[in-house]
Amino acid sequence: MSKLLLKNIELLSTPNGETNFIAVENDRITYVGSELPENFAADEVVDGKGMLGTAGMVNTHGHVSMTLLRSYADDMALMDWLENKIWPIEAKMNAKDIYWGAMLGIAEMLKSGTTCFADMYCFMDDVARAVAETGIRANLSRGMIGVAPDKDDKLAENTKLVKDWQGYDNGRIRITYGPHAPYTCPVEYLKQVIAAAKENDAEIQMHLCETKGEVQNCLQEHGMTPIQLMDQLGMFEVGTIAAHCVYLTEEDMDIMAAKHVRVAHNPQSNLKLASGIAPVARMLEKGICVGLGTDGASSNNNLDMLEECRAAAMLHKTTTLNPLAVPAAQAWEMATVNGAEVLGFKELGKLCAGQKADIVLWDMHKPYWYPRHNKLSLLVYAANSSDVDTVIVNGKIVLKHGCMTLFDEEKIYAEANLRAQKLLRK
Amino acid sequence: MSKLLLKNIELLSTPNGETNFIAVENDRITYVGSELPENFAADEVVDGKGMLGTAGMVNTHGHVSMTLLRSYADDMALMDWLENKIWPIEAKMNAKDIYWGAMLGIAEMLKSGTTCFADMYCFMDDVARAVAETGIRANLSRGMIGVAPDKDDKLAENTKLVKDWQGYDNGRIRITYGPHAPYTCPVEYLKQVIAAAKENDAEIQMHLCETKGEVQNCLQEHGMTPIQLMDQLGMFEVGTIAAHCVYLTEEDMDIMAAKHVRVAHNPQSNLKLASGIAPVARMLEKGICVGLGTDGASSNNNLDMLEECRAAAMLHKTTTLNPLAVPAAQAWEMATVNGAEVLGFKELGKLCAGQKADIVLWDMHKPYWYPRHNKLSLLVYAANSSDVDTVIVNGKIVLKHGCMTLFDEEKIYAEANLRAQKLLRK
Repeated sequence: MSKLLLKNIELLSTPNGETNFIAVENDRITYVGSELPENFAADEVVDGKGMLGTAGMVNTHGHVSMTLLRSYADDMALMDWLENKIWPIEAKMNAKDIYWGAMLGIAEMLKSGTTCFADMYCFMDDVARAVAETGIRANLSRGMIGVAPDKDDKLAENTKLVKDWQGYDNGRIRITYGPHAPYTCPVEYLKQVIAAAKENDAEIQMHLCETKGEVQNCLQEHGMTPIQLMDQLGMFEVGTIAAHCVYLTEEDMDIMAAKHVRVAHNPQSNLKLASGIAPVARMLEKGICVGLGTDGASSNNNLDMLEECRAAAMLHKTTTLNPLAVPAAQAWEMATVNGAEVLGFKELGKLCAGQKADIVLWDMHKPYWYPRHNKLSLLVYAANSSDVDTVIVNGKIVLKHGCMTLFDEEKIYAEANLRAQKLLRK
Repeated sequence: MSKLLLKNIELLSTPNGETNFIAVENDRITYVGSELPENFAADEVVDGKGMLGTAGMVNTHGHVSMTLLRSYADDMALMDWLENKIWPIEAKMNAKDIYWGAMLGIAEMLKSGTTCFADMYCFMDDVARAVAETGIRANLSRGMIGVAPDKDDKLAENTKLVKDWQGYDNGRIRITYGPHAPYTCPVEYLKQVIAAAKENDAEIQMHLCETKGEVQNCLQEHGMTPIQLMDQLGMFEVGTIAAHCVYLTEEDMDIMAAKHVRVAHNPQSNLKLASGIAPVARMLEKGICVGLGTDGASSNNNLDMLEECRAAAMLHKTTTLNPLAVPAAQAWEMATVNGAEVLGFKELGKLCAGQKADIVLWDMHKPYWYPRHNKLSLLVYAANSSDVDTVIVNGKIVLKHGCMTLFDEEKIYAEANLRAQKLLRK
């Protein structure tokens, strides 16, 4: 059994200046409080003086290895971008590229306070290996284009991923099925995916209702919205993480609430790609579980969840013309505990006894953390992801004073640069 | 004469990996290029290995001392917020509060790459002193409420500010007149302000068209939009910096373009206060000079200009449903050279020979700066303001390896905390 003690930690829930102890045994938080826990013989003690302890953030949607394409193509129209830039270079990527891209993205996420992420891409065995090695938590799926000639191989790959990695390291890795989107997956293929997911007791993650065009095409082809169509196919019975959900009808939202479809809201990706703004305030009113995501680094262009949290808190005040919409507490819940629920992780997303020990310590010794009227407001509206000093995932210290403990960051940067250059030359 | 040499600097305009020298004599850049400048005997050499050199960012709108109210009151309706929180506590602020609030805000701005800012508040002599001591560049105005009993004193204060500080330190400080807004300044008062500005050869900065209500009330009272009203009063002949400009008609924009009204666009403040989204893409099309601003720290809640630059680049793609709107280069221009023009500073905002030496070095050794396909995209869409390592203003190093050179940051944090606590107790 490993025992970790954090001391001198400030919390969002306690008054400014009051410090606390956090005890961690193996992968769980066993105590949070102002007194030193009795008879707790720690193997390791972390002094968090001047630091705020919070749950780790959960990035509910992305394509982590796309970090290799960061800044490769921006400020372009969607189809020009995909057809002339993204797809041709993606086609050249091999397993090693994917592994090092994942490493770069995971380094970025850990260093900015994200302890858990969702992924939908290719060579997912190599992404799972990067997750295993770096200590981060993840929900991984094989991205599947149902109109591609190798669609059956991809479905088989996704099933193999379930068999090989589901529940790895005491539940640190979860596997889902990743049909790409309604416009790339015909109904017959979706039926196969849903059947495979049911058979292997895995959930589904999918892009849904990202653009107006997608919804219009679905209505034309099927006489139903994408949400109605997926509902009719029985997808929601399997458990579904719906990424984007920018264009929804009231009826769509009622279905989603009833069937517990969980949403990955990606405010900055939706803005940058000119997709639109998701009706988040309305979804929350309807009781839909909404988490936050960065999407891939070629459409954002970073994996900074604090930025997404802030964007969500600010954006929906103006879309509703209501300055009380999505207050700081709600935005922070979306970034943490809601995110955990979206990705299907139990006992995750809060900093209290009984929860999985995914913890972030934020160094508050920066100008924008002063004065300290309200720590939650400071975190959501003023702080910077670079304030992250220490990160614990599943009870293990994976970032200490800003540096990864389980992997050499220099090697990651060098490999990522090298691989990106190679891809351009290929 | 002081001579400063920067070496090993990467630039936005040169290929990845290519390094440059920058020579600074007194307050000016005299050389930028790949060869060591001939016969340049530097007093000091800065090694910028691994760093990107850019012009400093210009924050075109704010109330810097409101940093003392950061996180004091958030997620509230505007009038409840102002009447029950902001105004009562502002009424208690004395000159020392304002000075230390300004110090805190300036520390935050320098550390995040802002070398020049606009301000409209009270006890402006103390703000000017903070500007003088920290080495930052500023355009300062006395905020004037024309319906207040002491309105004449305030106008006199603003005029004294012009006489005492206009052009200080080789033009590092500019003074403008600061009538607060159309709804707080009656026409007769505005006439006096405009006359005083004309007489003292100073420009005006003012909140204009921030909310729908403001424009509706102005139309009801005067039969004109705020822009039409100010135009009729002759304000624009004096030179005007218009903050916000969320609600504009086509005719308003035509007037602004013709009269060279410069705009301070505050995307995050407008979102958070649920004001709306300014028609920035349209203003830019019409040739209006638009810069960026943070607004005060109680409505944002930080003074991070890189966030505003990113928000501007992303937001207007979705408001126009055009992913090509406000590309990275345009957003960066808004944050730098446009900002300088908005605030009336000449030869400022670009990193080239002949310009004032306001320079920022960004440390690119972070995961989100890899791989390096396009440095401008990385800066605008992926970087973090905490990457700022070194800042030069008017030829002087004011921030070195993240620390202020001319002032003790610890003292600033301690005083800001103390003063905020005192204000709550008063």
